[in-house]
Amino acid sequence: MAQVKVLAFDVFGTLVDWRTSIAREAAAIFASIGRDDIDPPAFADAWRALYQPAMQTVRSGERPFTRLDVLNRETLDTLLDQHDVTGLDETARHDFAFAWRRLDPWPDTVRGIAALREIHPVVTLSNGNIALTMEIARRTGMVFDAILGAEATGFYKPLPQSYLATADLLGIAPAQLCLVACHHSDLSAARACGLQTAYVDRSMEYGGRTAPDAHMAQDWEWSVESLTDLATIMTVNQEPLA
Amino acid sequence: MAQVKVLAFDVFGTLVDWRTSIAREAAAIFASIGRDDIDPPAFADAWRALYQPAMQTVRSGERPFTRLDVLNRETLDTLLDQHDVTGLDETARHDFAFAWRRLDPWPDTVRGIAALREIHPVVTLSNGNIALTMEIARRTGMVFDAILGAEATGFYKPLPQSYLATADLLGIAPAQLCLVACHHSDLSAARACGLQTAYVDRSMEYGGRTAPDAHMAQDWEWSVESLTDLATIMTVNQEPLA
Repeated sequence: MAQVKVLAFDVFGTLVDWRTSIAREAAAIFASIGRDDIDPPAFADAWRALYQPAMQTVRSGERPFTRLDVLNRETLDTLLDQHDVTGLDETARHDFAFAWRRLDPWPDTVRGIAALREIHPVVTLSNGNIALTMEIARRTGMVFDAILGAEATGFYKPLPQSYLATADLLGIAPAQLCLVACHHSDLSAARACGLQTAYVDRSMEYGGRTAPDAHMAQDWEWSVESLTDLATIMTVNQEPLA
Repeated sequence: MAQVKVLAFDVFGTLVDWRTSIAREAAAIFASIGRDDIDPPAFADAWRALYQPAMQTVRSGERPFTRLDVLNRETLDTLLDQHDVTGLDETARHDFAFAWRRLDPWPDTVRGIAALREIHPVVTLSNGNIALTMEIARRTGMVFDAILGAEATGFYKPLPQSYLATADLLGIAPAQLCLVACHHSDLSAARACGLQTAYVDRSMEYGGRTAPDAHMAQDWEWSVESLTDLATIMTVNQEPLA
């Protein structure tokens, strides 16, 4: 097995709790316009459900590469129309879509990344665009060595180019890049490209319900309950090589 | 004047002392192969002199976008041939070219960036490729919010697209982006694109000789002797807005 040279992190779900964060912002917004009838966690789930279909129009080549900030705004408008929400103007909708830039980390995320950064360079490999990911990192105190991912490569995960072009930008072989993610689907696509894989369990990502890709579980190179645990394991394993 | 939202840093010369670092590595390499007749600082200057012509072949469209790591290796081979250097194999030449990833910062650089990062997000806007810039930052302890620049945009400075596409990636207007650089030529091109400009004096970049773009000096928005000074000025100026 090749030695890992860089750790690449998925962001939504793996590092941040999008569901709780989006539901909280939605609750405040709906309360402000007297629409308490819309269930915030259900709204967060419905918004997230439009995420893959929106990216699919880009992956398929139906439309040119379009940033997630833009896709998030389009899917928000779709959802607000479905709920006949009329009390939000352009500025309010723009700010609502940017709720995806204000997601809170899991309790171990910031410390875990910092500990892992002592061992390897750490980069993002997210479908979030650069400005979005940079803002999440800055707001939460996550420090990365580079913000890579879909916008840096021009390809949305799980297209093979998104993983392979990330390794290429880093000037390393795919086997020297390890994807850290809570999604078996993401890890599976990365492994098919030759990357190493580290699974982190985020059982609360969907509010405790089974993840849609649970059936894609494999025996990953690493499998942990938290990023701080991953740092501990990687430190121990690296010792003989130091 | 628009409020600055992000600071973008030139790297070679502005943040790191390429001439001293390259000369030091060259001295060690030439000594190891009994070629003490080659003057290391002159070799560093000659290597740097091939930098603009190499990028020009990309800017002109003569060849597709090619990473600086690759251009540095090509220009190194040219120089070594000129000096009839025969004692360096493929591995040694590869490592020699990567001397550009091992440049030392000026004394104020790391502290200055850290202080400025308390005020604004900080990104690189260098002609160095992502892996090269990331390695310089990691080796020296510079912390950036994102590594942008030529490879992220696909355009070498001073092409207008390199500045404009950087602002676009950040999701901000050109006037909200401030370039921090020690080169009047770079700042001049950035200003022509609508960016704000901060000049930092690096009088030792060329070993004390006058910079080739000294005649392009203008009255920049900021003009300082060090990055720590820039942080002090920006903190004071921002106070009324806080």
